[in-house]
Amino acid sequence: MRLSIIIIGDEILIGQVTDTNSGAIARQFGPAGWEITSIATVGDDRAAITEAVNRALSQADLVITTGGLGPTKDDITKTVLMDIFGGELRHDPEVAANVRLIFEKRHLNLNALTESQAMVPSSCRVIQNRFGTAPIMWFEREGKVLVTLPGVPFETEGMLPEVFAAMMQRFAPDIRLLHSTLIVSGITESDLAERLASFESALPTGIHLAYLPANGFIRLRLDGRGSDSIEPLFQAARQQLIASLGDLLVYDGNATPAEIVLERLRQRGFTIATAESCTGGNIAHRITSIAGCSDVYLGSVVSYANEVKSGLLGVSAFDIARQGAVSRAVVEQMAAGACQKTGATCAVATSGIAGPGGGNAAKPVGTVWIGWCVNGHVESEEFHFPGNRARIIDRATDVGLLGLLKRI
Amino acid sequence: MRLSIIIIGDEILIGQVTDTNSGAIARQFGPAGWEITSIATVGDDRAAITEAVNRALSQADLVITTGGLGPTKDDITKTVLMDIFGGELRHDPEVAANVRLIFEKRHLNLNALTESQAMVPSSCRVIQNRFGTAPIMWFEREGKVLVTLPGVPFETEGMLPEVFAAMMQRFAPDIRLLHSTLIVSGITESDLAERLASFESALPTGIHLAYLPANGFIRLRLDGRGSDSIEPLFQAARQQLIASLGDLLVYDGNATPAEIVLERLRQRGFTIATAESCTGGNIAHRITSIAGCSDVYLGSVVSYANEVKSGLLGVSAFDIARQGAVSRAVVEQMAAGACQKTGATCAVATSGIAGPGGGNAAKPVGTVWIGWCVNGHVESEEFHFPGNRARIIDRATDVGLLGLLKRI
Repeated sequence: MRLSIIIIGDEILIGQVTDTNSGAIARQFGPAGWEITSIATVGDDRAAITEAVNRALSQADLVITTGGLGPTKDDITKTVLMDIFGGELRHDPEVAANVRLIFEKRHLNLNALTESQAMVPSSCRVIQNRFGTAPIMWFEREGKVLVTLPGVPFETEGMLPEVFAAMMQRFAPDIRLLHSTLIVSGITESDLAERLASFESALPTGIHLAYLPANGFIRLRLDGRGSDSIEPLFQAARQQLIASLGDLLVYDGNATPAEIVLERLRQRGFTIATAESCTGGNIAHRITSIAGCSDVYLGSVVSYANEVKSGLLGVSAFDIARQGAVSRAVVEQMAAGACQKTGATCAVATSGIAGPGGGNAAKPVGTVWIGWCVNGHVESEEFHFPGNRARIIDRATDVGLLGLLKRI
Repeated sequence: MRLSIIIIGDEILIGQVTDTNSGAIARQFGPAGWEITSIATVGDDRAAITEAVNRALSQADLVITTGGLGPTKDDITKTVLMDIFGGELRHDPEVAANVRLIFEKRHLNLNALTESQAMVPSSCRVIQNRFGTAPIMWFEREGKVLVTLPGVPFETEGMLPEVFAAMMQRFAPDIRLLHSTLIVSGITESDLAERLASFESALPTGIHLAYLPANGFIRLRLDGRGSDSIEPLFQAARQQLIASLGDLLVYDGNATPAEIVLERLRQRGFTIATAESCTGGNIAHRITSIAGCSDVYLGSVVSYANEVKSGLLGVSAFDIARQGAVSRAVVEQMAAGACQKTGATCAVATSGIAGPGGGNAAKPVGTVWIGWCVNGHVESEEFHFPGNRARIIDRATDVGLLGLLKRI
């Protein structure tokens, strides 16, 4: 099964907006056995869209477009598609009802332009867009299918699972797809690949293991694809994989480190605070980006200046002077101080050299001490992270969060 | 002048990596008068690359490829380009020296694969890649030009200005390009466009004003393009624009709000702390993402729980109970407390409802109080920001930072 993607929109072509839709589509379809043949980006231009659609239809079984629709752009894309697939504009009462519903939800007034979205080519089926006003159109010609997704990433990502399910039903109705994501930490990708080499080589046909390395942890995704008989094989492989991972497995499922930590804290009835030097508030930011965090997250002290480490967290000025701010003594006192000052049961603390300046031979850029305090018990570890300032901050953030998981 | 871009790489096609190179190229070339005709993404596949290059050469004067080079991928792309432009592989001693230099800088060992990067087609000129090992190749045929940029965004973005200058010299040696960016805050894009309507309509040929709205502020970019006579016209337009903006202009140049604030604080000899509730450490994170911030940034308290507002920042528990945490009284005490507890001369404080839960009729989601303390003088304002949790957090961050600028 071959899939070709077309991104329509001047805003992408001139670099004003970065396309993320093609990646979302590829990640949804690829693991199910679709070969992505090409991605073409064209402007809101009739000739360019026509050429791209015809070329894509000649290459692939399924063509997915994103963008090029919406109240001010509709005309070009719809007209091109009617030139290719036939039909004429008709008023679709279900689309009209959906547009009205979306506008009511957003407290906006309908105007003539938005009502024009309810006009769709008679040659297509419509999948209602539950996340926006541009209808998703499904055209067929000589066994080839073209589906139009909206340009807004929020809408495309929201509707992707439904469109994907419809296309699997259309092209491979007997295929079963199974996925399982596991979060692994505390090992490099190459060491993990070595450890899982015999597991991987013994995997039955239709079952595949993918490594998705992140900054400080690795996502493993087990994909199964086949007839009904794939299910028991997949479950057996999954159990075997979990057994092989042992302590390296930090979470069974797909979530960010901050989400995993919040879920675990909630299960345990714990609360959390952070004391951050080199991560500069990034751990707090990651936690507070998650809605509803306030039942377990109490607060943080970002202690960049040494005086703030002493004044707000109670770190010994003598230890800072003697051992340096980037040291076991300081990061452990920061973690303990965060618990004490906020009343939290757990804390993560960081002190390190994010660079590019500030390093020396004994403590080069990338040196980071991370401390954890859980119910008064304090531990810490020294790390050496590669990369630039942003990567070191991100890595210390993820390692700090995942390190807490092992201790609660 | 027409430009076509080709992104080469399986990792982009399958959605493992998001392409940002095409946007960087388009933003560099577009304002100089280049029309971007198309962006094509293809895998590391000989036939697909060949077809994409031939099609791009038929459409455009200049074709820029990114990716498809590097020690393990070289063969395909170089062979395709020699099929099209002729030539044979030759050893380039300057490229070899550059590869060795890059490896020495990174303390890596050369191997045979990396040495193969020094083999380049005899039919191309080479622009030395100062940011990586893959040489930038410049091919010409019948007045058309093809240039290969590396796939790694850091390398492509680093080399873009030099490649752009070479292409302007090649295609439009007599054209002068002028740019000026101004940061504007405290007005909506549509109100600003109305205010500048007569200025814009009176701009001479070759001078163009672009609006680049961000979350909480607007970047204005004035572009000039023409012969030498464009310079005085451009400078006159720039002065007129600055006069029209008045107090709305917060910075003459291109920088992020955090960068602008740090620069201003440094000029004034001031220091900064933050006290964050709804922004959850994001202001601290933005500031500490900037290398060298420690001379002006002292630290922050993220006071999510009310007890932390009182305990670490000295906010009156009575005021929190009576007026609510999202109130003028509380945010002003947070700002004053941040200065007092850290010793900073300035502070930004936020307290609001980022959602999606927690809102009510009196204080709906998006309500944010922002407070500023400068040398003991405290001010605050109430805002209502649209959008989801992430956008509200980002907006409060930028408005909090830019609001400080007006007060120091």
